[in-house]
Amino acid sequence: MAAEIVNPHSGSGTETESIAGEPGEPFDPAFALHRGGKMAVQATVPIRDKHDLSLAYTPGVAKVCSAIAENPELVHDYTWKSQVVAVVTDGTAVLGLGDIGPEASLPVMEGKAILFKQFGGVDAVPIALATTDADEIVETVVRLAPSFGGVNLEDISAPRCFEIERKLKERLDIPVFHDDQHGTAVVTLAALRNAARLSGRTLGDLRGVISGAGAAGVAIAKFLLEAGLGDVAVADRKGVVSRDREDLTDVKRELVELTNRAGISGSLETALVGADVFIGVSGGTVPESAVASMAPGAFVFAMANPDPEVHPDIAHKYAAVVATGRSDYPNQINNVLAFPGIFAGALQVRASRITEGMKIAAANALADVVGDELAADCVIPSPFDERVAPAVTAAVAAAARAEGVARR
Amino acid sequence: MAAEIVNPHSGSGTETESIAGEPGEPFDPAFALHRGGKMAVQATVPIRDKHDLSLAYTPGVAKVCSAIAENPELVHDYTWKSQVVAVVTDGTAVLGLGDIGPEASLPVMEGKAILFKQFGGVDAVPIALATTDADEIVETVVRLAPSFGGVNLEDISAPRCFEIERKLKERLDIPVFHDDQHGTAVVTLAALRNAARLSGRTLGDLRGVISGAGAAGVAIAKFLLEAGLGDVAVADRKGVVSRDREDLTDVKRELVELTNRAGISGSLETALVGADVFIGVSGGTVPESAVASMAPGAFVFAMANPDPEVHPDIAHKYAAVVATGRSDYPNQINNVLAFPGIFAGALQVRASRITEGMKIAAANALADVVGDELAADCVIPSPFDERVAPAVTAAVAAAARAEGVARR
Repeated sequence: MAAEIVNPHSGSGTETESIAGEPGEPFDPAFALHRGGKMAVQATVPIRDKHDLSLAYTPGVAKVCSAIAENPELVHDYTWKSQVVAVVTDGTAVLGLGDIGPEASLPVMEGKAILFKQFGGVDAVPIALATTDADEIVETVVRLAPSFGGVNLEDISAPRCFEIERKLKERLDIPVFHDDQHGTAVVTLAALRNAARLSGRTLGDLRGVISGAGAAGVAIAKFLLEAGLGDVAVADRKGVVSRDREDLTDVKRELVELTNRAGISGSLETALVGADVFIGVSGGTVPESAVASMAPGAFVFAMANPDPEVHPDIAHKYAAVVATGRSDYPNQINNVLAFPGIFAGALQVRASRITEGMKIAAANALADVVGDELAADCVIPSPFDERVAPAVTAAVAAAARAEGVARR
Repeated sequence: MAAEIVNPHSGSGTETESIAGEPGEPFDPAFALHRGGKMAVQATVPIRDKHDLSLAYTPGVAKVCSAIAENPELVHDYTWKSQVVAVVTDGTAVLGLGDIGPEASLPVMEGKAILFKQFGGVDAVPIALATTDADEIVETVVRLAPSFGGVNLEDISAPRCFEIERKLKERLDIPVFHDDQHGTAVVTLAALRNAARLSGRTLGDLRGVISGAGAAGVAIAKFLLEAGLGDVAVADRKGVVSRDREDLTDVKRELVELTNRAGISGSLETALVGADVFIGVSGGTVPESAVASMAPGAFVFAMANPDPEVHPDIAHKYAAVVATGRSDYPNQINNVLAFPGIFAGALQVRASRITEGMKIAAANALADVVGDELAADCVIPSPFDERVAPAVTAAVAAAARAEGVARR
């Protein structure tokens, strides 16, 4: 995290010009920063002379290739495979922008890649695919897999993201992780655990309501239940996902089996009456009256960006703990707290996959970083808390070993 | 080329141990150097605080994504696309090792990637594919293409390499270049041009013989003829590719139409009688008597590695100019003289492809770097000659503009 930052892509002259605005370029610091991209490759071995070249390339490299051909496990030792993650998208669900295509998604994938590096010490390569067909995406990633130690799926729309992740997990022996699902779920669980601790309750005491039945909502619901949440109802645009609905997709039918033990049917507002936890991953707005109807001492995690489902000022009138997805309010639910350490830990022990136990371990480690600083405005660490990534990494590596998926 | 080199992957303790030999690890400096791989990703923008994060990632990045969605050409301005090449292999023809599979090919692909960076300032990512099916390789690369500014095909066996390259060129609007073919051909032409200049001859005066009808042999034959070589015969293991042979593949039937205007049939040795140029890209050994039978003042380019088809000491007894693929003899025909500058030039002007004219321009620029230093033991510059990459880059960019394939 202390690496010196240089931009080899920006010439001295053109940089000044671009900040001043290229023809047709909006004047905006984000555009100036993005000119030439946000990442580069670097050699980690010297190539100063013929001797260096003869070791890093021919003829010396041939011995290393032969050794790997003989013992394939050595690829982890003598290449960057175990150090590098493919950040794979098809550009169909990029931020709140929706299906903007692979090229337009690249700035996000590059951003993700440099967050992997900066926070987890993990190399990552943006792979934005020119197909939205689930089977084609699966085949493509399977073919790419020899070059990578892990696959981070990103910004792929639901319900295809569930199928793609499931098939890739079946076919690959490296970690496959859809961050929009599981990264969000891990950070949410960490924050919820600390909020419960702060108010002297256990997860089993709590009934939650999730607004949004996309990738994040579905994953959060399942994960919180696995972690012991008392009950959770998930609402989509048509209301609570419940047994009496006839318009449910496969994924939502599966949700019916797992969630909403209280048997609520109707609107999101109906579900919120007396609920202990609101988790918003939908966009949209929750009326103040619905927040007011929640149980006393409720937790409101309104994570939509840039506009939370409940404005924090309103949430604070009724809730004991308020979290958002925004960096300018306390308790930011930010995936960067999870995915760098999760992959760093998995890669460290060459895990064949990322198990539920590893994700639970990551959430617990993340929650524990807060320690004695626990307060209503501090249920989750800052993304820039330097204790986070090492704690998550160590917990995930240990869990991988405990669960028998570590290869070293 | 002057970037500071650090290896973030090697911990201080383990590094010493690995040089001393891990259990089961051969004691060899090449293995020590390869531990942890040879490359890394780096951020080129700062992520020190919330402000940085809000520009490089959400919410700032959304504006950049939206701008690209509206005007796709902007992907070249605001991502690393125009700076990064995919180094794609299926691991079927790796060095002289043959079909060793994708994992075992990775050390070579990483080596190639860092040569791209070190010599051309071009970022490159190793992509070793888990398929050897030509159509699957084509489909996979087409799907990857949004993320990359160019595709360097590497160590894919003939004849599939010809089909794969042709189909990719048809389908993609970014440069596709099979370095084993065209990189080798460019450097060979540069050396041959200088050898001819040294002896006061033109390419049209010369009759050449190529040993090897794989990727390199076929490409060199076609390219030298395009550049004006008088005639060339290509020999495979069964002898000269000639009209009377009935065992020819499609690629060799095409060679029959282009090469061997002299109508030679029979062995490589037969073809070498009176020939002016020998180009070895086959392995195998050429008997001294055959070298002795060549025309006076011949050029012998025995490029097989590590064992040249003709030992330089023997070649020097008969030939005016001797070149090899080895770094420990003068006149090394090394692809690193070509591919970094060729891609750097093509990317600089966002060329949609790499034309014959761009390759000829690269060869001429490379030959011209030698200038007044021209001598029998200096027909080609050293790979470490810092004038090479800028000269090739500029020539290729200018040729791309002249040929109408530049997009800026």
